[in-house]
Amino acid sequence: MQTQIKKDNRPHVVIVGGGFAGLNAAKSLAKLPVRVTLLDRRNYHLFQPLLYQVATAGLSPGNIAAPLRGILRGRQNVHVLMDEVRDVDPARRTVTPARGGALGYDYLIVATGASHSYFGREEWAQAAPGLKTIDDALEIRRRVLLAYEEAEREPDPARRQAWLTFVVVGAGPTGVELAGALGEMAQYTLRGNFRSIDPAAARVLLVEAMDRVLTPYPPDLSAKAEASLERLGVTVCTGTMVAAVEPQAVTLRRRDPTLGDQDEIVPCHTVLWAAGVQASPLGKLIHERTGAELDRVGRVVVEPDLSVKGFPELFVVGDLAHFAHGLERPLPGLAPVAMQQGNHVAKVIAARLADRAAPPFRYHDKGTMATIGRAAAVAQIGRLRLSGLAAWLAWLFIHLMYLVGFDNRVLVLVQWVWNYVTYRRGVRLIVGQGTE
Amino acid sequence: MQTQIKKDNRPHVVIVGGGFAGLNAAKSLAKLPVRVTLLDRRNYHLFQPLLYQVATAGLSPGNIAAPLRGILRGRQNVHVLMDEVRDVDPARRTVTPARGGALGYDYLIVATGASHSYFGREEWAQAAPGLKTIDDALEIRRRVLLAYEEAEREPDPARRQAWLTFVVVGAGPTGVELAGALGEMAQYTLRGNFRSIDPAAARVLLVEAMDRVLTPYPPDLSAKAEASLERLGVTVCTGTMVAAVEPQAVTLRRRDPTLGDQDEIVPCHTVLWAAGVQASPLGKLIHERTGAELDRVGRVVVEPDLSVKGFPELFVVGDLAHFAHGLERPLPGLAPVAMQQGNHVAKVIAARLADRAAPPFRYHDKGTMATIGRAAAVAQIGRLRLSGLAAWLAWLFIHLMYLVGFDNRVLVLVQWVWNYVTYRRGVRLIVGQGTE
Repeated sequence: MQTQIKKDNRPHVVIVGGGFAGLNAAKSLAKLPVRVTLLDRRNYHLFQPLLYQVATAGLSPGNIAAPLRGILRGRQNVHVLMDEVRDVDPARRTVTPARGGALGYDYLIVATGASHSYFGREEWAQAAPGLKTIDDALEIRRRVLLAYEEAEREPDPARRQAWLTFVVVGAGPTGVELAGALGEMAQYTLRGNFRSIDPAAARVLLVEAMDRVLTPYPPDLSAKAEASLERLGVTVCTGTMVAAVEPQAVTLRRRDPTLGDQDEIVPCHTVLWAAGVQASPLGKLIHERTGAELDRVGRVVVEPDLSVKGFPELFVVGDLAHFAHGLERPLPGLAPVAMQQGNHVAKVIAARLADRAAPPFRYHDKGTMATIGRAAAVAQIGRLRLSGLAAWLAWLFIHLMYLVGFDNRVLVLVQWVWNYVTYRRGVRLIVGQGTE
Repeated sequence: MQTQIKKDNRPHVVIVGGGFAGLNAAKSLAKLPVRVTLLDRRNYHLFQPLLYQVATAGLSPGNIAAPLRGILRGRQNVHVLMDEVRDVDPARRTVTPARGGALGYDYLIVATGASHSYFGREEWAQAAPGLKTIDDALEIRRRVLLAYEEAEREPDPARRQAWLTFVVVGAGPTGVELAGALGEMAQYTLRGNFRSIDPAAARVLLVEAMDRVLTPYPPDLSAKAEASLERLGVTVCTGTMVAAVEPQAVTLRRRDPTLGDQDEIVPCHTVLWAAGVQASPLGKLIHERTGAELDRVGRVVVEPDLSVKGFPELFVVGDLAHFAHGLERPLPGLAPVAMQQGNHVAKVIAARLADRAAPPFRYHDKGTMATIGRAAAVAQIGRLRLSGLAAWLAWLFIHLMYLVGFDNRVLVLVQWVWNYVTYRRGVRLIVGQGTE
């Protein structure tokens, strides 16, 4: 079956992935004399920085996700297709979706992102889910809430404590935010909800192999983040690795310079994985089809204009791209990088269409931030370093500003103010498998 | 294993089911010198009258559901247990949950409600899901949204139209509201979202065996509802039964006085079931254990004080109860009936504790209403009959008033105003099975 998209003379740009990079590319390209096909296996754009709030019952999925078709409704030259990519043929310039016939392209933009990594221990995925999709977040919410229900009915103190132990692996922004929200839930939200257990007796362990949390930040902000986490009852275990994950326990390994490895078995039922980076499998496919270099985590090394070496009409942007031109380290996998790269590719294509030379991509760092529960956050905005309430307000403002959809912004603000005033997390619903 | 609930001298009231009847009983009983155990297999109270809005992407589950533990947090004498009932022994006064040991009771209140009925054709359930739980609503939302996605990629006109055909079976309030919302989605919400199909070409059929929609209402309101539905593009098929449900088609049977049965096969992939009433299986269990009479749909016939004949300490309330004392017809399965019965049982128990006689239950009818898409509704409030915008505003006000949780009310109002102004249904997210 050949493509159903009506043929016309405008160049065809295919974008794979509707995250920050792909969506911004689509929006910018919509203004050019091209036709655009945006492929995504999901029907929505997700505001990933707030996904941990869905996992911890503070927000609803609908607050942080918006249907791609709705966002791009007014862009008549953009066609959205809900599908995955099965193959790419850069010589013939075609993309083959999993369900349809091959699509020819003039330009191809691959923006399928990255995920967490189990460092080769994929068998841990079932017991220690990660947080990348709405389905992941709902599964984590379900496990956390069910753990309290199990604890409430468990008469044996040791087994009860195992249900009340939550281990978060990896202290990057996602891990820190998850652990902070779990601490807040235990200390405040669930207070008075149970009759047999005290939710404040829950243990939240944040496990990090490096010697401090939030390693992309300066050490003093890491120290402030650790102090905030500990005020929320989170136990921060730096210099610690996970040696084993089982359904009933986790083995933590601490490297001791004098004693060697020290293993501790922590009985627990809820392990959440927020460690490692692993590029989307499309990286490998592009490597196989173009010979492009991949980095250690599978990201595609791109040229200064974000194209793949030897294939000027094939671009890789966002978390899947390894961009290091003129930099000490490759750009991190952050939403602002992805957005700027998505917009930049549209500029490059516009320049090519006009036979102009396009400037190389340059990242404008407007700062990074992470939040650690109520009114505690750390932020680095240029030379400015904020922590505490000021950082939290900046965090809230910036996140609201970038949320897609006006109603989402208003609803999230109302929900946030309400959660803040009452310590409530109203979306504590156990849905999905096992509730029937 | 015996119950973990600390023994004290106060009478123990066990409530099964945290819907309108059970939750209201728990709240009223919390004020009495009793201890209460509320059993529910889900951890949330659901505002069922708005569930169709979740199924049609207008609201999020978190907007219309609230965790039972949170609602009852301040009621120290109320213990919430997430579990199902396996058995009841009225002679020994014990309830056995599926997972724990037997619970002794002094009073037992059964409020496990009712569901739709496939009239003995349970094999239709897979192809034609009903709408009773949040999981049902999310499954329906997923199917409706995926049907449009499939239509968008389907080049064959007949197969495309089958994806764009939605059949709602049963024109009670739920069926009418679902069909109206589906019509609104096709005519307004999805306009401009697709490039290969026109969503307004979708067919929504509302199938009803009786000769008019909303049979509990007077005929003139039914006629107004039908007219409103048809303005939204819904085809109302009264006097029509479903003879077969298959994954790709539905067979509609029209009884014709002269020609006999006329069958029509409608190719379609999305069938939603909103017909029939079937009492919760606990009705049958109570019948077996007490000899209590069941009505045709399995509801337990109750005494004037809502107790089961011969078992004054065993009450059945809400949709599971058949109450007809001094009435022409038994009370309908509506939220206000359930709420009033829940409160009444608490009064009966209070009277028993004080050795007073309790008055029999009397239902105070404050009116019934149904909505049919944007700003169209019908309502009967005492002698007052409203339709159109006035009925819709009354409907909106009353539903908001009864929503549990202040933040839910504000959020639903904001979402509603936004949906109304923009025709948007922002929660058009396809999540759950088949999205990975």
